[in-house]
Amino acid sequence: MLQMAPDEMRELAHHVTDILVERVEGLGSRRAWEGDFKDALANLLDEDPPETGQPARDVIDRAVQDVLTNTLRLDHPRSFGFVPTCPTWPGVLADFMVSGFNVNAATWVTASGPCQLEETVVGWFRTWFGLPESAGGLLTSGGSAAALHAFVAAREAAGNPDRAVAYMSDQSHSAQIRAARIVGIAPDRIRVLPSDASGRIDPGEVAAAIAADRSAGCTPLVVCANAGTAAAGAVDPLPELADICAAEGVWFHIDGAYGGFAVLASRGAAALEGIERADSINVDPHKWLFQPYEAGCILVRDGSTLESAFAMHHDVLQDSVWGARHANPVDRGLQLSRSFRALKIWMSIQAFGLAAFRAAIDNGLDLAERAAEHVRDSSTLELVSASLSIVCFRINPGDLSEDALTNLNREALARIFWGERAFLTSTMVNGQFVLRLCIINHNSTWDDVRETLEVVERYAEEATGASSTTGTD
Amino acid sequence: MLQMAPDEMRELAHHVTDILVERVEGLGSRRAWEGDFKDALANLLDEDPPETGQPARDVIDRAVQDVLTNTLRLDHPRSFGFVPTCPTWPGVLADFMVSGFNVNAATWVTASGPCQLEETVVGWFRTWFGLPESAGGLLTSGGSAAALHAFVAAREAAGNPDRAVAYMSDQSHSAQIRAARIVGIAPDRIRVLPSDASGRIDPGEVAAAIAADRSAGCTPLVVCANAGTAAAGAVDPLPELADICAAEGVWFHIDGAYGGFAVLASRGAAALEGIERADSINVDPHKWLFQPYEAGCILVRDGSTLESAFAMHHDVLQDSVWGARHANPVDRGLQLSRSFRALKIWMSIQAFGLAAFRAAIDNGLDLAERAAEHVRDSSTLELVSASLSIVCFRINPGDLSEDALTNLNREALARIFWGERAFLTSTMVNGQFVLRLCIINHNSTWDDVRETLEVVERYAEEATGASSTTGTD
Repeated sequence: MLQMAPDEMRELAHHVTDILVERVEGLGSRRAWEGDFKDALANLLDEDPPETGQPARDVIDRAVQDVLTNTLRLDHPRSFGFVPTCPTWPGVLADFMVSGFNVNAATWVTASGPCQLEETVVGWFRTWFGLPESAGGLLTSGGSAAALHAFVAAREAAGNPDRAVAYMSDQSHSAQIRAARIVGIAPDRIRVLPSDASGRIDPGEVAAAIAADRSAGCTPLVVCANAGTAAAGAVDPLPELADICAAEGVWFHIDGAYGGFAVLASRGAAALEGIERADSINVDPHKWLFQPYEAGCILVRDGSTLESAFAMHHDVLQDSVWGARHANPVDRGLQLSRSFRALKIWMSIQAFGLAAFRAAIDNGLDLAERAAEHVRDSSTLELVSASLSIVCFRINPGDLSEDALTNLNREALARIFWGERAFLTSTMVNGQFVLRLCIINHNSTWDDVRETLEVVERYAEEATGASSTTGTD
Repeated sequence: MLQMAPDEMRELAHHVTDILVERVEGLGSRRAWEGDFKDALANLLDEDPPETGQPARDVIDRAVQDVLTNTLRLDHPRSFGFVPTCPTWPGVLADFMVSGFNVNAATWVTASGPCQLEETVVGWFRTWFGLPESAGGLLTSGGSAAALHAFVAAREAAGNPDRAVAYMSDQSHSAQIRAARIVGIAPDRIRVLPSDASGRIDPGEVAAAIAADRSAGCTPLVVCANAGTAAAGAVDPLPELADICAAEGVWFHIDGAYGGFAVLASRGAAALEGIERADSINVDPHKWLFQPYEAGCILVRDGSTLESAFAMHHDVLQDSVWGARHANPVDRGLQLSRSFRALKIWMSIQAFGLAAFRAAIDNGLDLAERAAEHVRDSSTLELVSASLSIVCFRINPGDLSEDALTNLNREALARIFWGERAFLTSTMVNGQFVLRLCIINHNSTWDDVRETLEVVERYAEEATGASSTTGTD
């Protein structure tokens, strides 16, 4: 009924392989962004499911042409918007294998090998982040789910207090706020504290807020620090926050979704000092560890806190007690049926070696430093911030009001979006509308970064009539 | 650094293709279950990441041999334990394509084509379940995450009441309880009501519990009904529960993780009558819609309830307002970065046609009916329940105590697990330890089911000395 002959299976897989390899070969020569508007896409795609089948090769071709081409190429070497990602081919093949082997990495019974390999990979992460042997973790769909796990573990460890409070900065990711709300922390007990000019939370503000909440009869539950804000790469003062959390008995969570894996590079490890004191950390291998979507991870200092929060008995799963000494990921998190996300991490690191991953992370840090220099030296651009691999800047000819600057930069961004090969996005830093490069693609070169900045400078010149002078590269 | 030459990419992908196609070709002749113990696996896999790379082909071969072979083959035609699944090849290829295209189906900006196609697929589901045009939904990692979305939407729609109560039966899946706890419903306000002999909740009990909670100053929030319990395929009295929820203003959630897609077959649609009255339904395409992991889905009667609960503003995503008329899945759920789960559903239905999916679901229902008949006619087996495609039974020679029966069946299960090609699991039905077949694989034949039952009968005969007489097949 739903089965195919082996020859057809092979032929189709080879066809898909050709499509994917040709895509990678031609990536740099295409635009980073493609897409279409709602009406055009609905016109193309909104139809009832067919009663009878179509030739599978045609279905594949249609999926490519009508659907997959209409995407942002996040692995394009000039894709610097949001937080991009550029997976490796062994990682992509691992996803293919996991689907083909139909792995459900729920329990020892369903997948003893995969569950063990997930332990191995989580163990690597534990070591990289300096967590003790007692630490544990789980691969998740991403940082949002990972943060959710942290907050549930924190809440359960604190005995599910009624008026729990979470603390974070105004630079914290909305995913953290959303996760806090999902687990039932009331919106008016999520303290969004102001950050300083460099995007860092003030530990004194955190301590004061905790004291005020205790006086008001609330229970300070969790402090969420940033190990690299998504907006500007800012790292909160982790050691000071760790001290406060230790003194107050408050759970110390760190959001390393974007920046966490910078610890693999020495500069990154220095910037993220104190991360080893976290009670929990969420990181995203599908960002700076070069994995295809989806791969997030929650690490907790005390592995048993996840099991206390998530383990459930269910009759229909009673045979899962077989192999009870084994890792049963289902007891550690939200998901029951689970794909096998560890394989891509393991296979890509086995194939390239960890040294190559370190070098790839260093490459992002290097390019960001050079980008910041270039902006600093530019007569039309203003450097607003540079931290880890994120550079925020704006076109600033020097004689415009803030409103006019915002309009100028917004206009430039829109024109680049519609007309150029590169893709970048905007954010707000200290109330200013800024353009932003997040440079983590292992294939990006200095030419990619420089030419992207030069595109912005060209728009700046056109808009202002100014002429840009930059250092020689 | 982390890039490969196109020729090597092709060669590796062809190698993986050969592995996967040969796996499918040889599936029936292997055992459904393989695995190993903790110590052996740790010995094999626990090692530090290598600093330098290994040949990628060797890495792939090692992943197959040491890791992927140690799994339950959930798509084996005699894999009847838990809730198995058997994906189609176009579905597997879709996962390969999604990884290769590196899709982040978060927003219109990141993936306008994929986001639109997800709308299309969710629209199909909406129609199948008889929900109104106003309904909306989201693909998720699975049923657990989908239920979480339902409870958050219910909680937000009710204004986040302080003492919220959830109602479900003792046959409800632990994933529902876990999701309720994650969103902050206190364990002592999750009412687990008794089910009747056929595994169905008593609507009178639900109404009484709601009344008692109102009197006690609690807020009845959500009734969770089963459209096919995982244990026995039992369907709660959906129309009666819908009436109660409508009268009481309580959110009506239906867990269709295992059984939901039975609506595509006429028998299934009849059994699930009333599902169209749900406020939310969670279903799992990675179960009875023949998709590889992961593919869950939450459907809500009023699509805006998801956005009210989950939409967040964040500066670093401010450019996502572009295309605001478009579907932005990120505003509807937990995940920000999201893989593109709709493609496998769309591609497999395009390639085979919906009629083939209906026939495949009918095949499961047919085989389950024949299995129940076979058990009924067997002199050594006792039929305990049969509903949808789940058959629960036990070895019962007729002269043993309940404890002895449990031991006998437990022993038989363990021997089948270690020694036979087929895989089945156990559960509890009405306090009895039973063996259980969940028959949803489109490749399973009557021979697969019959011979599996005959294996159980053989163990029964060996253990009891009785001789089994069954109807001719």
